[in-house]
Formats: sequence, C-alpha cells, structure tokens
Amino acid sequence: MIETDAGTDSDSTAGTLTASVIGASGFAGGELLRLLFGHPGFEVVQATSREYDGRSVGMIHPNLRGTDLRFTEPADLEGVDVLFAATPHGVSMEHVDAFREAAGTVVDLSADFRLPTEAAYEEWYDGHSRPELLGEAVYALPEISRAELPGAELIAAGGCNATVTSLGLLPLVESGIVGDEQEEGTATGTERIVTDVKVGSSEGGAGGGRASSHPERSGVVRPYAPTSHRHEAEIEATLGLRLSFTVHAVGMVRGAAATSHVFPAAAVSKADLWEAFRGAYEDEPFVRLVAGGGGVYRYPEPKAVAGTNYAEVGFELDPRNERVVVFAAIDNVTKGAAGQAVHAANIALGFEETTGLEFQGLHPVGAP
Amino acid sequence: MIETDAGTDSDSTAGTLTASVIGASGFAGGELLRLLFGHPGFEVVQATSREYDGRSVGMIHPNLRGTDLRFTEPADLEGVDVLFAATPHGVSMEHVDAFREAAGTVVDLSADFRLPTEAAYEEWYDGHSRPELLGEAVYALPEISRAELPGAELIAAGGCNATVTSLGLLPLVESGIVGDEQEEGTATGTERIVTDVKVGSSEGGAGGGRASSHPERSGVVRPYAPTSHRHEAEIEATLGLRLSFTVHAVGMVRGAAATSHVFPAAAVSKADLWEAFRGAYEDEPFVRLVAGGGGVYRYPEPKAVAGTNYAEVGFELDPRNERVVVFAAIDNVTKGAAGQAVHAANIALGFEETTGLEFQGLHPVGAP
Amino acid sequence: MIETDAGTDSDSTAGTLTASVIGASGFAGGELLRLLFGHPGFEVVQATSREYDGRSVGMIHPNLRGTDLRFTEPADLEGVDVLFAATPHGVSMEHVDAFREAAGTVVDLSADFRLPTEAAYEEWYDGHSRPELLGEAVYALPEISRAELPGAELIAAGGCNATVTSLGLLPLVESGIVGDEQEEGTATGTERIVTDVKVGSSEGGAGGGRASSHPERSGVVRPYAPTSHRHEAEIEATLGLRLSFTVHAVGMVRGAAATSHVFPAAAVSKADLWEAFRGAYEDEPFVRLVAGGGGVYRYPEPKAVAGTNYAEVGFELDPRNERVVVFAAIDNVTKGAAGQAVHAANIALGFEETTGLEFQGLHPVGAP
Amino acid sequence: MIETDAGTDSDSTAGTLTASVIGASGFAGGELLRLLFGHPGFEVVQATSREYDGRSVGMIHPNLRGTDLRFTEPADLEGVDVLFAATPHGVSMEHVDAFREAAGTVVDLSADFRLPTEAAYEEWYDGHSRPELLGEAVYALPEISRAELPGAELIAAGGCNATVTSLGLLPLVESGIVGDEQEEGTATGTERIVTDVKVGSSEGGAGGGRASSHPERSGVVRPYAPTSHRHEAEIEATLGLRLSFTVHAVGMVRGAAATSHVFPAAAVSKADLWEAFRGAYEDEPFVRLVAGGGGVYRYPEPKAVAGTNYAEVGFELDPRNERVVVFAAIDNVTKGAAGQAVHAANIALGFEETTGLEFQGLHPVGAP
Repeated sequence: MIETDAGTDSDSTAGTLTASVIGASGFAGGELLRLLFGHPGFEVVQATSREYDGRSVGMIHPNLRGTDLRFTEPADLEGVDVLFAATPHGVSMEHVDAFREAAGTVVDLSADFRLPTEAAYEEWYDGHSRPELLGEAVYALPEISRAELPGAELIAAGGCNATVTSLGLLPLVESGIVGDEQEEGTATGTERIVTDVKVGSSEGGAGGGRASSHPERSGVVRPYAPTSHRHEAEIEATLGLRLSFTVHAVGMVRGAAATSHVFPAAAVSKADLWEAFRGAYEDEPFVRLVAGGGGVYRYPEPKAVAGTNYAEVGFELDPRNERVVVFAAIDNVTKGAAGQAVHAANIALGFEETTGLEFQGLHPVGAP
Repeated sequence: MIETDAGTDSDSTAGTLTASVIGASGFAGGELLRLLFGHPGFEVVQATSREYDGRSVGMIHPNLRGTDLRFTEPADLEGVDVLFAATPHGVSMEHVDAFREAAGTVVDLSADFRLPTEAAYEEWYDGHSRPELLGEAVYALPEISRAELPGAELIAAGGCNATVTSLGLLPLVESGIVGDEQEEGTATGTERIVTDVKVGSSEGGAGGGRASSHPERSGVVRPYAPTSHRHEAEIEATLGLRLSFTVHAVGMVRGAAATSHVFPAAAVSKADLWEAFRGAYEDEPFVRLVAGGGGVYRYPEPKAVAGTNYAEVGFELDPRNERVVVFAAIDNVTKGAAGQAVHAANIALGFEETTGLEFQGLHPVGAP
Repeated sequence: MIETDAGTDSDSTAGTLTASVIGASGFAGGELLRLLFGHPGFEVVQATSREYDGRSVGMIHPNLRGTDLRFTEPADLEGVDVLFAATPHGVSMEHVDAFREAAGTVVDLSADFRLPTEAAYEEWYDGHSRPELLGEAVYALPEISRAELPGAELIAAGGCNATVTSLGLLPLVESGIVGDEQEEGTATGTERIVTDVKVGSSEGGAGGGRASSHPERSGVVRPYAPTSHRHEAEIEATLGLRLSFTVHAVGMVRGAAATSHVFPAAAVSKADLWEAFRGAYEDEPFVRLVAGGGGVYRYPEPKAVAGTNYAEVGFELDPRNERVVVFAAIDNVTKGAAGQAVHAANIALGFEETTGLEFQGLHPVGAP
Repeated sequence: MIETDAGTDSDSTAGTLTASVIGASGFAGGELLRLLFGHPGFEVVQATSREYDGRSVGMIHPNLRGTDLRFTEPADLEGVDVLFAATPHGVSMEHVDAFREAAGTVVDLSADFRLPTEAAYEEWYDGHSRPELLGEAVYALPEISRAELPGAELIAAGGCNATVTSLGLLPLVESGIVGDEQEEGTATGTERIVTDVKVGSSEGGAGGGRASSHPERSGVVRPYAPTSHRHEAEIEATLGLRLSFTVHAVGMVRGAAATSHVFPAAAVSKADLWEAFRGAYEDEPFVRLVAGGGGVYRYPEPKAVAGTNYAEVGFELDPRNERVVVFAAIDNVTKGAAGQAVHAANIALGFEETTGLEFQGLHPVGAP
C-alpha cells in the first residue's frame, strides 16, 4: 500500500549521480521528477518549491504519491551532480551562479539561455542580466546539437513550440529543399514558410486564471499567439530560416502539433521528401516518421506521443500549390520540456541516450 | 410533460409556408428541423430518413423530443413551398427533378450545385449528372450573394469550411488588399495565402466508424485534409483567389475556425484592415468583428458562436513578416450548413433575414 | 455587423417591464442576461459587476457581444420592476432591503432564502442576518411551488443540485411510493435513498483557481462533495425526505445529472412508476419523461438539455434488489439557476410561463 | 528514427518466456502488447487479429509503431509459455483447448471463466460450453486471490468494474464492517450497499457505432447499465456481498471510478475505517490509500492512475446518514484488464509482482 503522505520512499535506490529539480511544483518540474525517479542513473535529492515548501511532492503531482520526497525552499540548494531548473523565464539568469555552484551540470528549461546573442534576446524578451553566458550555453535540441552536448555544463533545453516546429522543418533545411532563397535575410522571398502550432492547456502552466479555467478553456480553438511568439526567434536561430508563426490553443492538455506550409523555390517530389526525412532521422531514437499509410493515425498526432519523449514527423505534397505541408507532434511537457532536458543530460553525462525515457505511450488515450 | 414518442405537437402552429427536410436524421437535417420548428414563417410537414423511417424525430435528435413528427421514406415527397435537402453529396443531383416538382424553392446543402461549372466540378469531384443546372443554382453565402437570392428556385448553400474561410478573406478581396497579384491565375505570386482550418467531429457526420469513435477521436489534433480539400475549389470560385488549404480535426464537436495567413503585395496598416473589415460587414446581421480588446475572448472562436448563425471575423497584423493573419469562426452545423440555408431561404422567400435565427449562443459552453 | 464594444443595442426593444441583474459577470448572471435579452416582456436596464464596472457585457460573455450594455457598480441600483440577484451566498441577505427598495419583485438565485427556518439555515450554513424573511420568501422550483408564486415579492430560486434531485424524486413522493417509512424523522429506515449527482465545471463559478484550471479539471471523475453537501438540506426541506447525497465533478462544463437509488417499503411495478411520473408531470411544460426506448439517448442526459430550461426525468426498476433507480438531468446554469429564476418571474408577474425559455437545445453538442 | 511499418524491432530483447496475445487489435490487446514489450521477462512472439491479419501492430496502436510485429490469424497459434486471451466474451470458452495446448499458462481477460459456478454464469450470461472449467480457473484479482495464483494454468482476470468496486469494498468486508447482516442471502437488510460506477468510452471497445461516435459520446453523463450489469454477479461472488449496482458513462476514455454507499449495521468511526483500509492494503504494491488531505486530488480519481496498474481507494464518513462512502479508481484498460492480467501472470510464473508494471502515470493529463 502506498499511503498519501506516509509512504516509503521507493525512489531511494542508490543512483550513481545525484540530481535536483528547481521549480518542482510546476508541470515541467513534476515531469522531471517522474522521469528522474524512473531513471536508474539518477537519484533525486532535492525538489524545490517556494509555494509548497514542506508539502509532499505527491500532494501536487498525484502520480508521484509513491514517494515521500517533500518540497524544500529554493534558497537552500544542495550540492548535486546535475541541477534541472524548471523556473519561469528570468529566474535562471538571476540564480545561475548559485545553480552552477551547487551542480557541475545545469540544465535550464526556461528561455533564459536559448538565444545565441544578447541582441536576439533583447529583441524578443526584456534585457538579459548575464549575456556573457549566452554563448557558453549549449542549446539542447539533441537531434540538432547532439555533438555539442557531451561534457556541457550549462544546457538550455529547447522550448516546446520551437522543438516541434524545428523537428518538422529540419529535414528540409538539411537537404537544401528550403533555405537558400532565404539566406539573404529577407522574409519576403518566394520561400515563405507559415507555421501554425496547436497547443494544449498545460502550456499555460499550473497557475490558473480566468482564461485557463475549465469552463472558458474547454474545447477552444483560440488564437493564443497570433503573431510575435517568442519561439519564432528560437526557431530562426536554430534553423537559420525566417518563418511566419502562429499558435492556437486547442482542446487538449498535453501536446503541441506544428503544421508548416513550405513553398520551396525548386520543385520537389515525394521521393525527395522521403529521402530528406529519412536522411535526417535515420539514427534518431526519438523520432518517428509517419506519413500516410493505413489506419486512423496517418500523420503525426500529439495523442500518439502523449507522455513520451517521442516526436512524430511527416509530410504531404501539394503539387497544385507547389507546397510541402510538414507535420510534427510532441508532448510539450515531455519531449518539449522535461524529456528533452533528461535526454540532453543523458548525452552530457555519458548515459545511454534513451535511459529513463523508454515509455511508449498509451492507446487509446483521451484528450492527451 | 413531454413524453418521448407520445408528446403533443408543439410545432404545429400554423406556418405561412410549408417546408420539408430531406435527409433529416443527419446532423444538418436535425439542425434544419430545430431552426424550422422555431421559425414563425415555416411549418415542417415532412422529414425524411431512409434508415429511420417511421421512428420519431426525437429518437435521433433528443433536443427535438417535444415534437411528434416522425421520419418518412424519401420516396414519397409531399408538395411543399420549400424543400431543404441535407443529403450526402451526389444525391441531390440525382433527385433534383423530384425535389423541384415537390417544391417551388429547393435549398440544397450538399456540394452538388456549389461550383459554377462542370469543369470545376469534375476537377474536384466525380462527374456531374446535371451540369446544366450549375449555372442556374444560386450559391448561397448570403454575405456574398445576397442580391441573387430573392426569388431563387435552386439554392446551393455554401460548405462549412468554405464559408468560414471566405468570410474571413472577403474584406481583403473587396478592399483590394489581396487579389490583384493573383489575377494572373498563378498560385506562385508573392500574395500566397495559406489557410489552416480546425474543425469539430460533427463534420464527419452522424455515422460512426473507427476514426470517429470517441476513444480515437477525443482530444486530437489530426491532419484531416492535409491538401486537396474540395472546399479549396469553392473558396477560389467564390473569391477569385488561389489559396493553400489544410484542415485539421481538433477536440470539439461543432465548430470551424479558419486562420488565413495573407501576404499582401503592398504594405497595409491596422487602419486599412479595420476599414476593410468594417466596410465589408457594417450592415451584416450575422457577422461580428472581434479583433483584440480585453477579456478572454479576443479573437474569433467557435465556442462564442456555437449553436448560432453568427460568424466572428478578426485579424492581426504581423509587420515583421509583412503578414496579415485573418481569423474566422462559425458553427459548422448552423452558419456552415442549416442556418445558412434558412438564412438564404428567408431572403429568397421574402422573410426578414434573421427570422428564426436569433439564438445568441451560450456562455460558458464546454467543447462546442 | 456587430462590432465588439461598439454595436447598436439590439436589446432595447421596448419591454413592458424593466429588469436588472445584480452579479451579472458570473455564469448565472450572464445566463440571466441572455434569457432576458430574448424575453419580449422584459427590458434589461442594469447589469452590475463590481469587478468589471464600466466594461461591456460582451467582453465577459462573448455570446452577448451584440449588446452595448455595460456593467455598472452594484452600489447604484436603478429602480426596476424586477431585480435578479446572482450574487454569492451571503450577499443577498446583506443587501435585501436595497434590492426590495429598488424593485417590487426580487428573485434571488443564491441560497440565502431557500431554507424554511433559521435553524435549518444555521445547521448547514453560517448565521443568517435576516431570518425573519425566511418564512416570507417563496422557494421557486415551479414544478413544486407554482401555486405560491403569483404576486410573490421575494423569490428564492432553487439550487441546481437540489432542483435536479427533487425533480427526479418528486413523483415517488407525490404518489406515496416513498416517504411514509421516513416520516418518523429517522434516516435509518428501510427506505434509504442514495443520490449521486454528477456536475460540470460551471458549478465552480467563473473564478478559477488551481482545482478548476483546465489541466487539473479536464476529464475528471472527482468526489466534489462526498458528504454534507448543503443541497441535501434543501431537498429534504422540499420533499420531506431524508437522503444520502454525494456530488462528483465530471468532464463537462454545464449540466447536472442526479441518479437516486430508492428502496421502497412496498413492492412497485413499472406500471406504478409510469403512473407516478406521468401523474406528476403531465402538464409541466419543462419536464420530459425519458425512460428507455430506442436510439442513443434512452435515459435523461445533461447533453440533451444543455442550454435549455428543460429537465429530463426517467427511471428503471431493479427487481433483484427491490430498487428503483431514478434519473434526472438539467442544465445547471439554465434550469438550475437563471432559467428557473425567469420561469418563476414569469409566473410571479403574470407572463405565459414559457416566455423567453423556448430554446430547444442542440444536437449534436460536445461536452455541454 | 522509427519509421512506420519499417522500424527495427526494439522489443526483441531476449525474454526468458515467450508470450502471445490473442485478440491483439482491441484496446486490452494493445495494452497487453505495450506492457509485455516493456517486460524484461517476456518476449512477444505472436499477436493475433482476424480483422487486421498481416498489418503492422503499430497501424492500429500508434504508440507501438516502434515494433515490426504484425498481426497474424488466430487460427495458427504458436506454442508459447503464456497466452493472453483478450477476445470478446464467449470466444475463450470455445477455444480454450487450443489455448491450453499452445501454452502452459493461459490468462483469459474475458468473463468466460470469472464466475464460480455454471448456475451463476447462466443467471447473468447465456449458457456455458465448458462449465467444468469454472471451478478450475483462478479468478485473478491479485489483492484477493494472490495465494491461489502461483502455478495456476488457467487464470480469469477480473473485470474492470468488478475490480474497482471490489477493491473499494474489500477492507470493509475483511474487517467485518459490512457483511454479517447480509449473510442471510437477502438484499433487503439494513446493510444495503449502492455502487455507482463511472466509466470511460474505452469500455465500449474499439469498434465504433453511433452511440460511441465522438459527437454523441462526448461529454456525456449517460446511464450505461442502470441495473443488472453483469459485474454485479462477479463482485457478489468475490466479496460474498449483495449490492445494487449502476454504471454511468462519463466524459473520459480510460478509467473507472466506483463510489459505494455503505450503511453498516454497527456504528463505525474514521479510526475504524483507517484501520480497515490500512490493514487490507498495507503490503499491496499497487494500491494507494487516498482519503482527504490537501491539494486538488483528495480522493481517488481515474486521472491520477491513468495508464498505470495502480488503484486508488479512499473513504469518507457521513455520520448524519450513518453512511460510509467508499471511493476507488483505476484505469480500466490497465489495472482493470491488461495490467491485472500481467500482474497475475507475474505471480503465476514466479516473476517479481511489479515487473513491467512500474509506470507511474502522468500529471497533468487530459481526459484520461
């Protein structure tokens, strides 16, 4: 029996590395705990939450009722091998010295260290208090920056909407199907790209508020960021592409699905696309190529990857409009946040990449 | 008390015109019955259904349990003033002579008579058995073709996804913000338009099947028509525009939301857009302009119009990408089908336009 | 065109009686506005909201964007014929003198005046500041107290969960199938009644908070009031029955469904039950009897009455366990609050009972 | 990269025992595959499906796209160590000889071998073709019948609704809080028990049909089995109790929640209840006791156990009505079907009980 607030600690199996989660009462923080508890190479020794200091982790994350870990104050950081920071944007840059003093490896899930330059950061966010670290931090979308991760000490895990969009477009960039016409730095070329992302309510965080209350949020198709979403900058920095980016909130809790409409300068065939996508992801353990075929699930869908670290990517060709439609789907809490962070830590610290990330997802599943 | 299968007929108030609904057990057919029962100018005298012949209308449409109307065989059409056909595509063209013999005014909700020419029809559908009627039928998106409707005898009510997309883009066309560069008949100009429509499960009809079963369909973001959706043809015929069109199924039952990404050849300002949208819809009784402002509902949303004949339209300007993002939302069963048909019939037959279509919708509402 | 914040007032058709809504930014307040705007006998002249003073009604209730009515401060009450108070519990008893000074008829939607005695109120709530009015107020569940309503000046509209439960059980009480064994005032007789109510998230109000945030509230089956729900008192006062009452929150926004398990002292047949239910509701305009039959909707369901003032009631006999299972379903915001209040006002003020309450609901409808 | 229909078989790590799944295209069958693929002690060598013979398992169960296993015809059974049958009721009894010839251990997930006697089976189902096996089969609700499982060759895994109800009531029976008054074999004693179960749409199976189509099934509270649900027999056989049982379909896909209202003959205190529940489940690895406490999740909820083999149980005392309200929640596909089957197989075959069943579930999660 696992009794609420009084269970035995099933997680205290001696891990080889110690880990802490800062901001552990949020959705990404809870997912980090879940993944780390199931990871044979990590032992979680601290989970901080200002608001729930002293309460059991399972009171907030009911799936974690089997642990007796309790939240502690973020002011008292314990020394660990790796520290995961799942705090709101702006917090990590203020506390980064304390984080790095506490841990040899810091994985930050916020946007603080994702953009490459101070200028880029200031264009999309407010001023940056530690701009000198922007160059040092390794942006972690492992499918793109795997080579830079081993031994990295400051890792900036990619944002959810940027991750799902970049994974869809990456094969087109790597294969040269798009990009050349754009290198002039103008957004008005014939290679215009439009991306429409649909996201679940977990992207709004664990807080609440009228817009995210169940009666108002249920079953919506709501323009959430019609223009100027900050992940536009992240994608452009990652892929070297300009794109027109819009985000809608739709009726699910977990999940992000990106549909990108691409108009290549030169004609492409389905065979070209298969080659591009296979070439990009042949050896990727967490990317599934789903493009047509039979059954109900013919293209990428968030439902098919809910709770997992997998991304699904696929495409369709629209000869009439000389268009390539690219689909990508992830779980924003896992692959778009905590899973990506653990994946990056696995590479940085020398674990097998997939360790602790093997969950395959469920079928059927309701609104994910 | 209204007892199932044994109520008094609360709908038998003497209407001035008689009406029938062919294909009345489907979703659009049921919505037609609901609207006509509440319409002071119509008396429903027949509702046909091959599958449910003899059963009470309320057995299939539980909201209509207050009537004692029963489904009858479509083979025995009664003479009426107006006949609404809510049958699957292809049925109306086969039975159009019988429909017109039975009724002076026929409003068809299928795609059979929406496209202007046989060539257009054959490009997107199969062969047409009555092409000579394509020129005679009046396409009914009343905001666009109001002038042609009075006295029309064969009316083709616009399709749901075409309606929501066309209503969003119409102000840009009428004001000349887009279109000129496209008149060359090429889709590759700089005025490329991308439309991403999100739809509810009622678009799949009342049938069932594995893909639309609740466990598989709940909470999806599913590419439903990645390319080559037939409403692309309808929109292009209506607006004289080329556009790249993609439809996703999302987690709701009723509703269609169209987001169009437009890149005008010449720069536009917010003031230009306000002028265009106000100019297009100033006198329209069923179009609401929603663009920004406070509160939770800042842009068009299907939830805000669920169950109503209203469309919401709005826009946002993206100067960085020289893009206009246009939003439009309707209830696909009402404004996108039955409500539009009744609206057109009102105009055709000389009723006040809004008669029987006054329902304002609900707040809050779950998944619409 | 109806432009947000700048429309013409489509609601200013000269009503014969003036009305105001106090607490108009909440869900019940918004529903009152919707119903009153469509009611030919009322003209809404004031809608108060402390929080949204000065904002347009349509900013909060997007379905009401067609009006230019704005919220005003509740401190400045206008004189009207009828005042509807949709304020939280405890507010009406504090302001009841001001309400009655402003209006000849006051309809209160809170619990303040529902219980018959101070002792009953204090057992379930806190102290009552105006207990002398408890005897004067008319409890309005029109199917039960219709005779007392004409001319009533202080009306307490029944609570949502009490309404749905009482409507289900009323036929058993009126016919004597249950109740006699209970008149001794003990809950331990053989006629024990268990009621399990399932409710939507709108019962939690428009506020928000972590428990009602979309990620936490979606798709739950959550014991919401396992025991000691205050509506238990209201039902017992209304029906003179003891019952064991439990409320669960389930995955919808609007709706309340009550399943009561009744073990009559004497054996009953299906014919007895049909007679009891028909006898109770034969002349009721807003009650539908749904018990078996074909199709998908064989018993009462909230979906079938969403947005309407209708209640569905039905039953099933369980001979093996000598049990009668009674089902009832309403829309908690309409029949369980605003619709019931308008229904009561119609009777109190001499309108046709069903005026303004004719909406039949939708099919299909998502989560209601 | 994992390519649909062309991936490498990540599941072919050498298991020590071979396993097959009969009826593998259904929901329980797919869940069995998921659990067995992640189980270090089993290697899946066959998954049968008449309808999808030759298709890849991942076409039906998108979460399993990483395997290259294909469905085969059930007529050609391979010899295995353990065979799991997830076929509709009535199939196993017809094929049980073939199943037992193919495998030393057969775990049947249907109702065919759950009831103890032919008389009981015939009262609730149709005739039984192999009644002599009813006594031999071990009913597997491991928390109740653990001792009989080691070495069992024919195991009947408990039904979902019976499992969740029995787990809630078991502590009351074991502790003697209920049951004594019922031993007379009558259902009319003062210890009457009422159980109301709420279930998700996956209980309807993978088929489809109008009642389970998304538009009709979304957001319902639908009396699904008002009376005479067959699991009533299973619970009574398991616990030796009579109870009045009703099942509602509610707005989720996975999950079953049982609320039982119990009126013990003798007064009980909260301390008695804590002692009873702790006593029953102290050593159970898959039962969590959740009764009150802080946070959002204070009682058992299906959301908190979605995708897992855990059950949550809890209670509340209602002194006013001398009632104990017992709550229990499981995932019907996992703990209520496939997880329970694997759990039983683990015990039967000597594996550590929790092997392959360690998934902790997600937070947040949408409709589960």
